[in-house]
Amino acid sequence: MKRRQFVGGLAAAAGVAACAKQENDCSADGATAQQTYQWSCVTSWPPRFPGLGMAPENLATRVEAASSGRLRIKVYGAGELVPAFEVFDAVSRGTVEMGHDASYYHKGKVDAAQFFTAIPFGMTNLELNAWLYYGGGMDLWRELYVPFDLVPIATGNTGVQMGGWFNKEINSVDDLKGLKMRIPGLGGEVLRRAGGTPVTLPGSEIFTALQTGAIDATEWVGPYNDTSFGLHKAARYYYYPGWQEPGPGLETIVNKDAWNSLPPDLQEIVSTTCQALTTDVAAEYTHGNAMSLQQLQEDPNVEIRPFPPEVLVLLRSITQEVVDELMADDPASRKIGRAYFDYLDKVSANSRISELAYFQTREF
Amino acid sequence: MKRRQFVGGLAAAAGVAACAKQENDCSADGATAQQTYQWSCVTSWPPRFPGLGMAPENLATRVEAASSGRLRIKVYGAGELVPAFEVFDAVSRGTVEMGHDASYYHKGKVDAAQFFTAIPFGMTNLELNAWLYYGGGMDLWRELYVPFDLVPIATGNTGVQMGGWFNKEINSVDDLKGLKMRIPGLGGEVLRRAGGTPVTLPGSEIFTALQTGAIDATEWVGPYNDTSFGLHKAARYYYYPGWQEPGPGLETIVNKDAWNSLPPDLQEIVSTTCQALTTDVAAEYTHGNAMSLQQLQEDPNVEIRPFPPEVLVLLRSITQEVVDELMADDPASRKIGRAYFDYLDKVSANSRISELAYFQTREF
Repeated sequence: MKRRQFVGGLAAAAGVAACAKQENDCSADGATAQQTYQWSCVTSWPPRFPGLGMAPENLATRVEAASSGRLRIKVYGAGELVPAFEVFDAVSRGTVEMGHDASYYHKGKVDAAQFFTAIPFGMTNLELNAWLYYGGGMDLWRELYVPFDLVPIATGNTGVQMGGWFNKEINSVDDLKGLKMRIPGLGGEVLRRAGGTPVTLPGSEIFTALQTGAIDATEWVGPYNDTSFGLHKAARYYYYPGWQEPGPGLETIVNKDAWNSLPPDLQEIVSTTCQALTTDVAAEYTHGNAMSLQQLQEDPNVEIRPFPPEVLVLLRSITQEVVDELMADDPASRKIGRAYFDYLDKVSANSRISELAYFQTREF
Repeated sequence: MKRRQFVGGLAAAAGVAACAKQENDCSADGATAQQTYQWSCVTSWPPRFPGLGMAPENLATRVEAASSGRLRIKVYGAGELVPAFEVFDAVSRGTVEMGHDASYYHKGKVDAAQFFTAIPFGMTNLELNAWLYYGGGMDLWRELYVPFDLVPIATGNTGVQMGGWFNKEINSVDDLKGLKMRIPGLGGEVLRRAGGTPVTLPGSEIFTALQTGAIDATEWVGPYNDTSFGLHKAARYYYYPGWQEPGPGLETIVNKDAWNSLPPDLQEIVSTTCQALTTDVAAEYTHGNAMSLQQLQEDPNVEIRPFPPEVLVLLRSITQEVVDELMADDPASRKIGRAYFDYLDKVSANSRISELAYFQTREF
């Protein structure tokens, strides 16, 4: 907790300047309420990147406003304080108080964390939220992070991601063979077993790799973020549906000591603002995707088309193998995976007669 | 604003007791920060009713926690202070500071408000949020309520509602003729033009009306709320998809003077908590529906089945007529309706290749 500072005397912002000057007149509660906190939040995103990077910025702005400046959070983009994929370690060690990233980046350290972001052919945004907030998911998530001195708080969801950009048509499962594609996580492992070559690249390097032919294909997020990287100028074919990340949830992680140092009202402000951002980030993505898709649909150089069913059937069946192995190898993944798939059975039965049935009807 | 009370001297809860006692030592800001507010919130729901009624209860609990008791809200169920459908008037007049209901209940007073709850064959939960928060919808909504001295804040969404419970099978459009069904709002008008007889009944009277045969059918919400009223014991057939309310948004309304009396931090706490509840209410419904659906699927006396496509096609085409007339007759509905349908065109194109395409794939 080296970087944490308790800033006394800035309490004018909270409107209690007189108390700060006259500590003897203040109750114990009063002393706590005056305390001002200055936190750092490291992230896995380019600074102020649409959606992903705006979530922690908005979190900081809104927490400061709701707390009258008693909790100020300075947000750092990937690489500004720590590299994109070292957010977990930095917050766990207490180098900084807070981080914003996606839990599936912690694969290798804590494999079971992947269930709280997205599983191929798994839960959507609304389904994941139901599991987390009402189906026991958050309890499992908090328990999983206890050994790392981290408190996870769900904060944002991108919604269904797209299948990605391809330099060639995908007409059959044979077209996946030898395909060099930027696709991380479980999706990448599924592609590997389907005969492709998954590559891991940070977002900022994707455009050049695709344009120079160093890779044949890439997934990133969806129209909103993909066009901001210009991926539609580097490849012709844009495929859907996204099968690999049907509703990735983002996370805020807070160092346990930093969390415990906050009075209850500031804890409530942080956790409520994170939950508000889950609505807000999804709204930003849904809006941004709709606007950018319109631009792509008008672009004569872009073809937006569905994957052939046989490709999806294969990817789905391989996904089952990959997840089964993950659950066989790791007790935490087994416990959390069982809870996840039990819940998916029930919640997808409901989506079938509500969301899916409605969307189909609207297409009549 | 007769009922609003500014309670000074309770500032111990905010931890600034010393300031309260020594006003001369406190800055002007300090005096504001100490002020404690006691509000009343009237609602259209049975007290603590699952989902709908829990939203304002949770709002009150969380705002009190985030504000250290500086803003306390007492929630009243329908009929406890004012009848279910008089929430709008009570808050507009300033009899109470706050209300929680659905904007389509204001049909007749302000017809255009219906666009902010749900339109048959219109936007889903995620689509509506995109429009409200990023597509200009909230601005239109706030503008619409200015003459009524009301500030609207989106607070909760039930997700896709079900088509409803029926005492007989619906095999064709002929089966709608003469059908006496509890179905309010635009959906009711659509049914009327399809040959049925729409009836308006408060939730609490639906079960008996259905069981005694006073009505042949009813829609209410979905498995979660419908089973809590026991509707599955009063009718055999449960139809989907719900076409009439594809993602109804709920609203908090705040009297303008009450809103303006709050310092900026409390305004931020209220609006952020409302946005958090939009995630939370959807999660509660998705979870509750999934659990209750499982119970219905195991019930030998219940048949869950889709409407015939010809029925949905007819209802959709009548919906277009009804909405066109609404927009022709009322300038505010025309302005807001145009914005709504322009947005629906764009956002549904995105849902087609994301949410819909994904749900279909998961069914392979």
